[in-house]
Amino acid sequence: MNKPNNKPTHKNRPRSGNHKIFSQKENQSKNNSLSKFTKNKLRIIPLGGLEEVGRNMTVFEYEEDIVILDMGLQFPEEDMPGIDYIVPNISYLKGKEKNIRGVLLSHGHLDHIGAAPILLEKLGYPPVIGRDFTLALTKKKMEDYQKGSTSQLKTIRINSITDKIRLGNFKISFFDVEHSIMDAVGVILTTPQGNVIHPGDWTMGHNPETKKDLTYTQLANVPSPKILMLESLGATDVRPAATSEEAMFDNLEHLISEAQGQVVIGTFSSQIKRIGTLIEYAEKIGKKVALDGYSMKMNVEIAKELGYIKAHKDTLISVQDLHKYPKNKTIIICTGAQGEGNAVLSRIITDNHRFVKIQKNDTIIFSSSVIPGNERTIQRLKDNLYRKCDNVIHTDTMDVHISGHCNANDIKEVLKQIKPDFFIPVYANHYFLKEAAKLAMEVGIPKEKIFVLDNGSVIEFKENQAKVLNKKADTSYVMVDGLGIGDVGQVVLRDRQVLSADGMFVITVLLDRKTKKVVGNIQITSRGFIYVKENFDLVNETKRKIVKIIKDTTSKNTSVEKRFIENNIRDIIGQYLYSKTERRPMVLPVIIEV
Amino acid sequence: MNKPNNKPTHKNRPRSGNHKIFSQKENQSKNNSLSKFTKNKLRIIPLGGLEEVGRNMTVFEYEEDIVILDMGLQFPEEDMPGIDYIVPNISYLKGKEKNIRGVLLSHGHLDHIGAAPILLEKLGYPPVIGRDFTLALTKKKMEDYQKGSTSQLKTIRINSITDKIRLGNFKISFFDVEHSIMDAVGVILTTPQGNVIHPGDWTMGHNPETKKDLTYTQLANVPSPKILMLESLGATDVRPAATSEEAMFDNLEHLISEAQGQVVIGTFSSQIKRIGTLIEYAEKIGKKVALDGYSMKMNVEIAKELGYIKAHKDTLISVQDLHKYPKNKTIIICTGAQGEGNAVLSRIITDNHRFVKIQKNDTIIFSSSVIPGNERTIQRLKDNLYRKCDNVIHTDTMDVHISGHCNANDIKEVLKQIKPDFFIPVYANHYFLKEAAKLAMEVGIPKEKIFVLDNGSVIEFKENQAKVLNKKADTSYVMVDGLGIGDVGQVVLRDRQVLSADGMFVITVLLDRKTKKVVGNIQITSRGFIYVKENFDLVNETKRKIVKIIKDTTSKNTSVEKRFIENNIRDIIGQYLYSKTERRPMVLPVIIEV
Repeated sequence: MNKPNNKPTHKNRPRSGNHKIFSQKENQSKNNSLSKFTKNKLRIIPLGGLEEVGRNMTVFEYEEDIVILDMGLQFPEEDMPGIDYIVPNISYLKGKEKNIRGVLLSHGHLDHIGAAPILLEKLGYPPVIGRDFTLALTKKKMEDYQKGSTSQLKTIRINSITDKIRLGNFKISFFDVEHSIMDAVGVILTTPQGNVIHPGDWTMGHNPETKKDLTYTQLANVPSPKILMLESLGATDVRPAATSEEAMFDNLEHLISEAQGQVVIGTFSSQIKRIGTLIEYAEKIGKKVALDGYSMKMNVEIAKELGYIKAHKDTLISVQDLHKYPKNKTIIICTGAQGEGNAVLSRIITDNHRFVKIQKNDTIIFSSSVIPGNERTIQRLKDNLYRKCDNVIHTDTMDVHISGHCNANDIKEVLKQIKPDFFIPVYANHYFLKEAAKLAMEVGIPKEKIFVLDNGSVIEFKENQAKVLNKKADTSYVMVDGLGIGDVGQVVLRDRQVLSADGMFVITVLLDRKTKKVVGNIQITSRGFIYVKENFDLVNETKRKIVKIIKDTTSKNTSVEKRFIENNIRDIIGQYLYSKTERRPMVLPVIIEV
Repeated sequence: MNKPNNKPTHKNRPRSGNHKIFSQKENQSKNNSLSKFTKNKLRIIPLGGLEEVGRNMTVFEYEEDIVILDMGLQFPEEDMPGIDYIVPNISYLKGKEKNIRGVLLSHGHLDHIGAAPILLEKLGYPPVIGRDFTLALTKKKMEDYQKGSTSQLKTIRINSITDKIRLGNFKISFFDVEHSIMDAVGVILTTPQGNVIHPGDWTMGHNPETKKDLTYTQLANVPSPKILMLESLGATDVRPAATSEEAMFDNLEHLISEAQGQVVIGTFSSQIKRIGTLIEYAEKIGKKVALDGYSMKMNVEIAKELGYIKAHKDTLISVQDLHKYPKNKTIIICTGAQGEGNAVLSRIITDNHRFVKIQKNDTIIFSSSVIPGNERTIQRLKDNLYRKCDNVIHTDTMDVHISGHCNANDIKEVLKQIKPDFFIPVYANHYFLKEAAKLAMEVGIPKEKIFVLDNGSVIEFKENQAKVLNKKADTSYVMVDGLGIGDVGQVVLRDRQVLSADGMFVITVLLDRKTKKVVGNIQITSRGFIYVKENFDLVNETKRKIVKIIKDTTSKNTSVEKRFIENNIRDIIGQYLYSKTERRPMVLPVIIEV
C-alpha cells in the first residue's frame, strides 16, 4: 500500500539520538499465558496495523526460530491528535529476541518498512532480507531517524528471485509480484509443519521480463499444507477491471505532450515506478522534469543510483531552474496530492512556492487516489486549483491513476491458481477479510480452512490442522509523538481531545495557609474557550463563585486538603461554565498556599 | 442534501433562551461599498454554505424587496474543533431587515432549514413560505432551539404546486422536484429584470401523481431572461445511471422478507420517504418496526401527523417492546450509519443499547452513503458489525441506497429541457461548479452566459445583461458553539488546534514584588503533553531553567514588567521542551507577584 505521510512531520530531519529520554512505558504484556515455545508447531501472528490485520508486521515462529515479515508504521486516526505515527507492539517478542533469525521486507512502502529504524534497534538488529531498492530505502529511513544507525545493520540481499535462504527451521524462497513500487517480492516460508505463501501487497500485472501476465500457477506446487496469506483490500471491489496501466500512461502522456503550459503532476512519493516512467517519457519528447518534495526526491535519487530510473543528466532539473525553460517544456512532479498543509502542492496553490506559480493554461494532474479521511481536504485543494487553472485533471474526470491493489476478481483468480489448503486473508479491515472469505468459499475453499484473524491472533499449524488460540498477543497501540515512543497513552490522548473541543480554563488562587482565605486576586487564564476579554461579566461572576466555594469548603475546617478544594472548584465551576455557555472547557484550579 | 448531525450535539434539548450572553461579535462588514439599493436590477447573492456555494442560503434583491431562499446550517470541518455548526453570515442584510418580504424553504433538510431558528429571530421573523412538511420540521427545530419561539413565526403555506405568491416586486411560483425528502419544491422568482428557476436539491425521478418521469420542459416557457440556478453536486459523476429507486426497494424488501433474524437498517434521519416506504412494506408482510434515534422518531412523527406516512398503530412499536415479538418479525430503523459515537447504531455495536443486541443471524443494512470525512469511522463501524453478525449489507456489496442528487447526464438533460438564457451552477464545491459549466457548454450554452459564483458573490441582472460585482458580501464563518453564536473566531480555533496537538504546560510562579525573587515552589500543571509524573527529570530541569530565566531577566532591572518575564519564559521553555521532546505544548506562564 502506498500511504504518504499525510500530516506535517519533522521526522525527516536527522535525530540527535536522544530518543529515549522518556520512560518507555511498554504496554502491559497480555500474552503471559501464551506458551513460550511452539514445539513442533508453526505459529503465525499478525502483529501490526491499526485496523488492517497484519499489514505492518507478521511473526512466524517454529520452535526456537522466529522470522518476521515487514516492520511498517501507520499514520494516526482522527482521535489521536498530535501523534506522528504508530508502530507495531513487540511485547510478544520480549525475551525471544535471540530467536529472531531474520526480518523479511516485502517492499519499500512506509507501512512495511517505516518502523524498522525503531524496531530493529529494540530487537538487537536481526538480519534484514530484501531486494536492493527495499534495502536502500530502509537504510535511508534509518539514517534519517538516527545518524550512523545503519552501521549496526546486517542485510541479506535477494540477488535473484530463485534465491533460497535458510533461517533456522525456516526455508525461504521468493516469487515475483506486481505492486506500485519496484522490487516488491512475494515470499514462501517452508517449515516442517506448514508452508506459507505471502505475496505482500499485490495486483495483477505483467512479469517484467517476459512481459506476459504474471500468474501464480507455479505456487500450486508448494507442498501441503499450503497456507496462503493474501492481501485482500479489494475484496468488495467488484467493478470490472479498472483501466490498465497502459491506458493510464496513454492518458498521462497525451496530457503531457498536448500541454500548452507547465505540467504539474501530484502523486505519492512512493509511486517511484510511475515517476520513473514519466521521467523517461519526458526525456523522449524533450521536456524537463523538476521533482519537488523531500521524500520523492530521495526515493528517485535512490532509484537512480540503483539504475531503476534511467534519465539523462539534463532531463532532471531543479525547481530553481524552471524559469530557464519555456513553460510548455517543463513538468513538475511533486508531493501533496492529499492536501497535506505544508507539502509542495499546497504551497503552489497558496502562492507560497518560491519557484512555481500556476497559470490558467497550465495543466495540473492528480495522479493519486484519495486516502480515506482526506476527502474534504482534497475537495478544498481541488477548489483552489480550479480557481487558478483551467486544466485540472483527476480520477473523477479521467483515468490518471491506477491502484496497486487487487480487486475481488483477482482474489478469486489467484485462489484458483494456487489452490491453497488454508486461506488467511490479510492486510485489510476485518470486514474486507470477511468478504474475502466469502470469495474463497465461492471458489470452493471449505469454510473450516479459512481463518479471519485479528492483529494479535495466534494461529498454530500442526499435522495438517490449524487452531487459533484463545489468548492473543498484545497489540495495544505504540504511538510515536516527537521523540517519545509509546509514552502517550489514553490519558494524554483523552486530555488532548477535551482540550481540542472546548479549550481550557486555568484558575490560579493564592490561599493563606492558615486562614484559608484568598490572598489578592484570583487569576483566570483561558485558551480555546471564549474570548475572556469580551466576557468580563462571566469571568467576574466566576471569581465570585470561586471565593464562595473556598469559603464554604474551609469555613468549618481550615485544615482541609488543597486537593479537596481544587476538586470542588473544578466540579462547581465546570458546571457553572456549562450552564452559561454549553461548553465544557478543561477546568484546572491551581491553588498555592502562602 | 441529507447530512446527519455527525457529531455529538446537545442542540436537541430545549434552550433556556439565554443564548445571547456573549457579546455577539458580528463579523466586520465587508460590504460597505456595495451600493445599498439595486435600482431596476435583480441582484442575487449566494450567502451560505462552507465550500458549497449557496447551499444554505441565497438572497434575491430587487430594489427594496428581498426574498431569501433557505436558511440552512453546515457541520464543521476537521479544523474547527468543538464547533457545533456554522450558520450563514447575514451581515449583508443588516439595515435591510424591513425589506425582507419572505423566506422560501425548498425542503426540510438541515442544510436548508437548520439555521432558521437563529436567523429568523435576528431578522425579525419575516414570513416563511413552504410546503407542509418543511414548515412542520422548521417549527420543530425552532421549538427545540427556544421554546415558544414559533409564536413569532408567520408562515405562508404552499397549498398547491400551482400557487402564486407576490412578495413585493417578486412573483413566486413553484414546480415539483424529486429529492430524498417529502415536500421538496422548486421555485420560480419572476422580476422585471430576470426570472430565476431554482429547483433546490434535486434528482431525476417520477412525478408522484402521474408516476411518469419528471420533466422540466414546461420551465422552458418561463420568459426571458431565464436564469437557471442548478444544484450540480453530481457534475463529475459520469457513471451510467445508478440503480433505480425501484431496484433499491426490491433489494431492501428481499432482505427484509428473507431475514432469519432481526433486521437493523441504519439510515439518515432525514430519509423520511424511504423510512415511510419501509414501514408500509413491513406492515404488508406482517413485521413490526421500531424506530430509534431522536431526530428520526421526530421526523416520522411529523410525517405521520401530516398523513405522509401511513401505518397502522400496531406496526410501529417502541424499542422497549421488541422483546415481545419473534426476532424475525422485527425491524429496527435507526440513525448512526455514519459512525457517530453516541448514535443508536454505535450503541448497538458496543453493547450499550438497552433493548437491541445483535446476533449472528441478524441482518444489518447500511441504507446510506458515506459523508466525506467519515470514511474511516464507518470502516471501523463495519468491522465491528461484521464481527457480530454474518449478514452485513452495504452499498459496496449491494444497491441498498440511492442518492437524492443528480449526475452529470441529468444536468445536461435538464439544461436541454429548460434552455436557460443564463446558467448559474450552485450547491457544490467550486470544482464541481466548474465541471458543471463545462457540461453546460457541451449542450450549447455560451460560455459568457455561465457564471460560477462564490459565496458572497453579487451578480446583477439588468436589461438582459449579467454582471458580477467586484465587491463581495461578507461570508466569514459564523460558528455556533454551545450557546455562543459567532463568538468563536480564528484565535480560539487556533488555540484549540495547538492544544489538541501537543497539550499544554502551565507554569505558576510566585514572585516577590520588590526583589523579583521566586517565592516557594514553581508549580507545573500539564495536560495532553507527557505524563509529568513519569518525567521528573524533565520537570525539575524545566523549573531550574525558569528560575534562571527570571534571574537573568530581572537581575539588572527589578521593575521589569511581568508580561516581559512571562514572554521570556514562554519562548525559552517552549524551545527547551521542543528540544527534549519534539513536541510543542502551549506554554502558559502565570506569574503572581506577592
